[in-house]
Amino acid sequence: MWRELLPIGRHAGSGGYRRYAWTGADAECREWFREQAEARGLAYEVDRNGNQWAWLGDPAAGDAVVTGSHLDSVPDGGAFDGPLGVVSSFAALDELRGRGTRFTRPLALVNFGDEEGARFGLACVGSRLAAGRLTAEQAHRLTDGDGVALPRAMEAAGYDPEAIGPDPERLARIGAFVELHVEQGRALDLSGDRVGVASAIWPHGRWRFDFRGEANHAGTTRLVDRRDPMLSYAQTVLAARREAELAGAVATFGKVAVEPNGVNAIPSLVRGWLDSRAADQETLDEVVGGVEKAAREYATAHGIDLDVVRESFTPVVEFDHALRDELARILGKDTGLTVPVLGTGAGHDAGILSGRIPTAMLFVRNPTGVSHSPAEFAAEDDCVAGVRALADVLEGLACR
Amino acid sequence: MWRELLPIGRHAGSGGYRRYAWTGADAECREWFREQAEARGLAYEVDRNGNQWAWLGDPAAGDAVVTGSHLDSVPDGGAFDGPLGVVSSFAALDELRGRGTRFTRPLALVNFGDEEGARFGLACVGSRLAAGRLTAEQAHRLTDGDGVALPRAMEAAGYDPEAIGPDPERLARIGAFVELHVEQGRALDLSGDRVGVASAIWPHGRWRFDFRGEANHAGTTRLVDRRDPMLSYAQTVLAARREAELAGAVATFGKVAVEPNGVNAIPSLVRGWLDSRAADQETLDEVVGGVEKAAREYATAHGIDLDVVRESFTPVVEFDHALRDELARILGKDTGLTVPVLGTGAGHDAGILSGRIPTAMLFVRNPTGVSHSPAEFAAEDDCVAGVRALADVLEGLACR
Repeated sequence: MWRELLPIGRHAGSGGYRRYAWTGADAECREWFREQAEARGLAYEVDRNGNQWAWLGDPAAGDAVVTGSHLDSVPDGGAFDGPLGVVSSFAALDELRGRGTRFTRPLALVNFGDEEGARFGLACVGSRLAAGRLTAEQAHRLTDGDGVALPRAMEAAGYDPEAIGPDPERLARIGAFVELHVEQGRALDLSGDRVGVASAIWPHGRWRFDFRGEANHAGTTRLVDRRDPMLSYAQTVLAARREAELAGAVATFGKVAVEPNGVNAIPSLVRGWLDSRAADQETLDEVVGGVEKAAREYATAHGIDLDVVRESFTPVVEFDHALRDELARILGKDTGLTVPVLGTGAGHDAGILSGRIPTAMLFVRNPTGVSHSPAEFAAEDDCVAGVRALADVLEGLACR
Repeated sequence: MWRELLPIGRHAGSGGYRRYAWTGADAECREWFREQAEARGLAYEVDRNGNQWAWLGDPAAGDAVVTGSHLDSVPDGGAFDGPLGVVSSFAALDELRGRGTRFTRPLALVNFGDEEGARFGLACVGSRLAAGRLTAEQAHRLTDGDGVALPRAMEAAGYDPEAIGPDPERLARIGAFVELHVEQGRALDLSGDRVGVASAIWPHGRWRFDFRGEANHAGTTRLVDRRDPMLSYAQTVLAARREAELAGAVATFGKVAVEPNGVNAIPSLVRGWLDSRAADQETLDEVVGGVEKAAREYATAHGIDLDVVRESFTPVVEFDHALRDELARILGKDTGLTVPVLGTGAGHDAGILSGRIPTAMLFVRNPTGVSHSPAEFAAEDDCVAGVRALADVLEGLACR
């Protein structure tokens, strides 16, 4: 099952995956999902937003237990982010059928569309639409890097963009959603555990820092006459690291745009984007406030004008406490061990849905800690442990 | 005369000039040069490399005195860089005719093609070809940002790209070349002089610094697990400033390229270009060596791989001492004052030609010190003083 997915959308040069929403590689992944569902005699359907579902039992009965993740990828992403959760869902069902489990609640497996937002710039489009956190009008305005609008891309893939929108009836039938995901850090590697349960998704945001100076000749302008915004930018990059270290948070300048960006030109504008996340709102405010304060001091010292714009922000997502405790109880039942409960800095469909339905996440150990890169990894033994944990959880939830 | 040139190639949005080689704006400037030459009864010609000439007297007589500059611009450049030298050449000739001057040597005015290199990425193409410092084969391989090759661009402008190449016979007829240029720094403003004479063009070069780390998720990767090349880049930007300050030189990081350049991605690669210039070779070596040493220390500390590649280098250009002293003598003759002699960090056609013929430069005060930007400026009085100085020099050289 895993091996069939591996070649799809893999780039020969980078070794990374390029499975972007509504492309050929995405269609192949979706076809694979349909085949897996049908091979197991599950009732296959696609919802109005293009999310794929495979049902065991009657959806209309309500209080369903749902598990799944996504099959699309970031540019040159790894093999595990998303697909591990979908593959583990099918594998967990196989495991439970092997155990002869009888379900008292409907069970569904799901593949959410366009989770990574790699093509249209917005993450979790499939779950956002379903949860009413993105309107059809907003989605219709999304375009990719080549100027192709989302509706045209959906049409080209054989879907109806006019049908998209909130799906409250579908969500009302779900009693619990559990998403299994490869860990995107090294907490489990450091604690020596194969599997953990998510506590919360850290609050996070993106801030654009525009440092405006004066374009000038790099060969003839004396240092004292310069208003070089690259210097303030560089100092701010280092300040972000310091503030994050002090607060136990993360802060990253990963994207820069420079004007005119000429080798022999002092820049007129250096625009840097700060991504920052912390365990709680107060800490995040402290980090970003500290970075902005430092940036303003540097800018003033160099005669630079600084604008800081918050481009996006997501408050903390606390996963349902009752469901989380239930998962921890189920997973600790046989071993008596305490299952690690950990926060995460990454967004997920589970985070989007958690405002509407009880939601939980399982993480599988990633010894490299690397994510969104071909170096992300989970050992076979740990993947098997993940499948067994997911099977235990589904059994515990759906066979009460 | 000045007013006719002002609107050509001016961008309404930026207020800067976009006069790129072999474009429509360039053709308008060249047409203006032809009209000015013909209006004065000068013999107009275009050489094999597209440089424009206007002759007074018989070129074949040899030992000609030549003055001029260029009419093309950098992206969103100012009005003075180049055009001031060409306009002043015509104005100086008018001044000398007003004085009733009789020339004993042939005199020529010149507009060199493609000095800024804004379109094809290489500066001083017209003078380089003439001086044999760029071969026709090399020039034929140049392409602009839209993929248009230089030969196609020349053809489209009505010139024969097959004719380009070295022009030793033409250069052999020239006894002295004097280029007047707006100063690209504030030395004259600080010394309180309207006009100065160039001593040398500083040695300068471009170095590419490739900082390679590990792409990773900006939200989930712990700070201690990161290999973030942006941090080493930022430290190196600040080190370059420190080294240049210590040495009385200049060093600039004005161009950056980041991969993957995503807001939520720790970069795998940050590529920064260092432009550095100093009064002498030893100082320049010291600055660049210091920056590279610091960069290697930072890179090692962050687990970053660093490659440093020298992409271009131009050794110091000392202008002809005899001609320079002659200019200083002519300009000091009436006033008894010492004319300031200053170095420059910028390249010029005069620098290219100085290896082949005696060459000198005059600078006109620029109170802003700004260059390659709409903010570059010379006051009308200073421009008039520049024209008078150039007329004096031409008279002194060509009427001996």
